[in-house]
Amino acid sequence: MTVAAVPAPELDVERWFNTESTPTLAGLRGEVVVIEAFQMLCPGCVSHGLPQAQRIANTFGRDLVILGLHTVFEHHEAMRPVSLEAFLYEYRIGFPVGVDRNDGSDSIPNTMRAFGMRGTPSLIAIDRHGLIRLHAFGQVDELAVGATLARLVDEPR
Amino acid sequence: MTVAAVPAPELDVERWFNTESTPTLAGLRGEVVVIEAFQMLCPGCVSHGLPQAQRIANTFGRDLVILGLHTVFEHHEAMRPVSLEAFLYEYRIGFPVGVDRNDGSDSIPNTMRAFGMRGTPSLIAIDRHGLIRLHAFGQVDELAVGATLARLVDEPR
Amino acid sequence: MTVAAVPAPELDVERWFNTESTPTLAGLRGEVVVIEAFQMLCPGCVSHGLPQAQRIANTFGRDLVILGLHTVFEHHEAMRPVSLEAFLYEYRIGFPVGVDRNDGSDSIPNTMRAFGMRGTPSLIAIDRHGLIRLHAFGQVDELAVGATLARLVDEPR
Amino acid sequence: MTVAAVPAPELDVERWFNTESTPTLAGLRGEVVVIEAFQMLCPGCVSHGLPQAQRIANTFGRDLVILGLHTVFEHHEAMRPVSLEAFLYEYRIGFPVGVDRNDGSDSIPNTMRAFGMRGTPSLIAIDRHGLIRLHAFGQVDELAVGATLARLVDEPR
Repeated sequence: MTVAAVPAPELDVERWFNTESTPTLAGLRGEVVVIEAFQMLCPGCVSHGLPQAQRIANTFGRDLVILGLHTVFEHHEAMRPVSLEAFLYEYRIGFPVGVDRNDGSDSIPNTMRAFGMRGTPSLIAIDRHGLIRLHAFGQVDELAVGATLARLVDEPR
Repeated sequence: MTVAAVPAPELDVERWFNTESTPTLAGLRGEVVVIEAFQMLCPGCVSHGLPQAQRIANTFGRDLVILGLHTVFEHHEAMRPVSLEAFLYEYRIGFPVGVDRNDGSDSIPNTMRAFGMRGTPSLIAIDRHGLIRLHAFGQVDELAVGATLARLVDEPR
Repeated sequence: MTVAAVPAPELDVERWFNTESTPTLAGLRGEVVVIEAFQMLCPGCVSHGLPQAQRIANTFGRDLVILGLHTVFEHHEAMRPVSLEAFLYEYRIGFPVGVDRNDGSDSIPNTMRAFGMRGTPSLIAIDRHGLIRLHAFGQVDELAVGATLARLVDEPR
Repeated sequence: MTVAAVPAPELDVERWFNTESTPTLAGLRGEVVVIEAFQMLCPGCVSHGLPQAQRIANTFGRDLVILGLHTVFEHHEAMRPVSLEAFLYEYRIGFPVGVDRNDGSDSIPNTMRAFGMRGTPSLIAIDRHGLIRLHAFGQVDELAVGATLARLVDEPR
C-alpha cells in the first residue's frame, strides 16, 4: 500500500451510472473520497476489489463517498458501457460508477494514467483536502483499509 | 438434480470459441458429453458453475467431453461474442464454448429452450446413447456430480 | 491418491463414540466402508477432512458406511477421549468414531500403523470384499472421491 | 458491536502460554489492549475469532497488545491446559494466551464473568486509560474492527 500525499488529479469520466449528478473531486472537496478502479472482466476485481468496495460502503456509510471507476485498458470492445450497465445490475453495485474516458492516444484511459495506477483493481483514498492518502493495487488488507479510512474520516474538515 | 432419460436435442450454436471444429451431439454420439450452460454476467456462473466445469475437465480429462454453452436470455446487448471472447480469456476457460443461437422469436436462445433449461448455470450430462442423464440448475453437489459422471463414463460404448 | 487393492487390516479400536455397537471390518464385509482418519487438533482435518466426510455421509447415505478413526500420533495427552467427545459434539460429527488403540510400542497407534497411513487427514475406502481401493493423504479432490465411491458402491455384493 | 466505556476489570488468569511474563491490565495501562476470548473447541473461534486476532497482530504490530484468553465455560475436562498447549502449537497462535481462572462457583470462569461476556468468540478492546471501548460477540466486521482499533491507537497516551 503506497501512501503518497500528492494532490489527486481530477476525474475524466465520459459517463456515470447509478447517479443523476456528475461527481467531481473538486465538488467533493471536504469529503473523504474512495475510488475503486476496476474492469468488469478482471477476475480479481470481481472476487476481491468490488466486494471490498461494497463492504466499505456498508461500514462507513455517509462518512465518506465511494465512487467506482471503470478503467478499461484492455479488451476495450468487450467492456463497452452497455456491458458495464448489465454487470452493475447483476452484481448489485449500488454506488456511482464512472467510465474513465480514453482520448485515444493509447490503451490506458485518462484518469487511470493521471493517477498512475498500475492495474486493476486499484483502491484510492483522497482526504478532505484533495490529497491522495492511499493508493493500493491488488488485494488489500481489510483491517489496514479500515484503519486508514477511519483516520481520514476523523481528520477535521 | 433432475435425471430425465430423454434424448438430448441437438445444439444450435452460432459460433464456437476454443475449438477449430464444430461440435455436434450427433458427432459426439458414443462419448459422455457434459454441457455447462452459463451467461458471462451471471454471478453464480462465475463463482460456482464455470469453476466446477473446469474441475470436471481436470478430473475426468479425456473420459468425457465438456462443452460450454453461452445461453444469453437477458442483457443480450451486454454479452455479445466480442465480450464473451475476452471473458473466456480472462477467466482462463479452456474448453470449447458455443454461443447459443437466438432465432429472434423471444429472449430465450434456441438450445436453452429445446433443453428446457430453467436458468443459468445449468449442468447437463448426456450419455453415450445421447440421453440426458443429469440436468441440474444452480449450485450442484460436487460429490454427487462426480458419482453421476463416473457412472456414465463406465457405461459400455 | 493411491489405489492399492490389498486386503484391509482389521480396526483396533479402544472405544467408540456415536454408536452402540462395535463396528469391525469383518462384520461390515459386503458393505463399502469409508474411513476418515483424523486428529482433533489437526487443522487440515478440521477445515477439510472432516467436512468432506460429513458431505460423503450426506451424499451417499445408506449406500456406504462411514467411520471416523481418531489416530493420535502426537500430543497424546492433549487429545484424550474426554476431549474428543466434546470435539465431536461441538463440530456436530454424527457418524461413528473409534479411538485408534496405542499398544505403547511407539507414538503411532495400531490401526494407523497397520494401514500404513502417512498422517492426518487420511481418507480410505474399502470395497465389499475388504480390499483397500482408495488411500489418500491430505486434501482430496471432491469430484474424484465422488467418482471412486460411486464405482465401489456399484460393484456387486 | 457494543461500545461501553466502562473500566475494564482485571484479568484473573491461572496460567499463561507464549509469554515469560505475567501480563496484567494494570501493568499495560497506557497501551491499547485487545483481548480475544475463545474456547479451543468452539468452531466459530477456530474459523473466525482466532484468525482475526492473528490478522490484528499482523496488521497493528507493536501499536497495540493482543492477548488471548481461554474462557472455558463448557466441557471443562475436554479443554485442560495440556490440550490448549497443543492447540496453540498446531494452530500457530503466537501471542500470549491466558487461562481464565474458575473459582468453582459455577461453570463461567472469573474474567469472563467480570467482563460480562456473552459467549465465545468475544473481541474486546481496552483504551490507554483502561476503559472498554469495544466488546463484540461472534463474527465481527473486519473493516469496523480496523477503524475502531486505529482510533484507539491514535488517542494520546
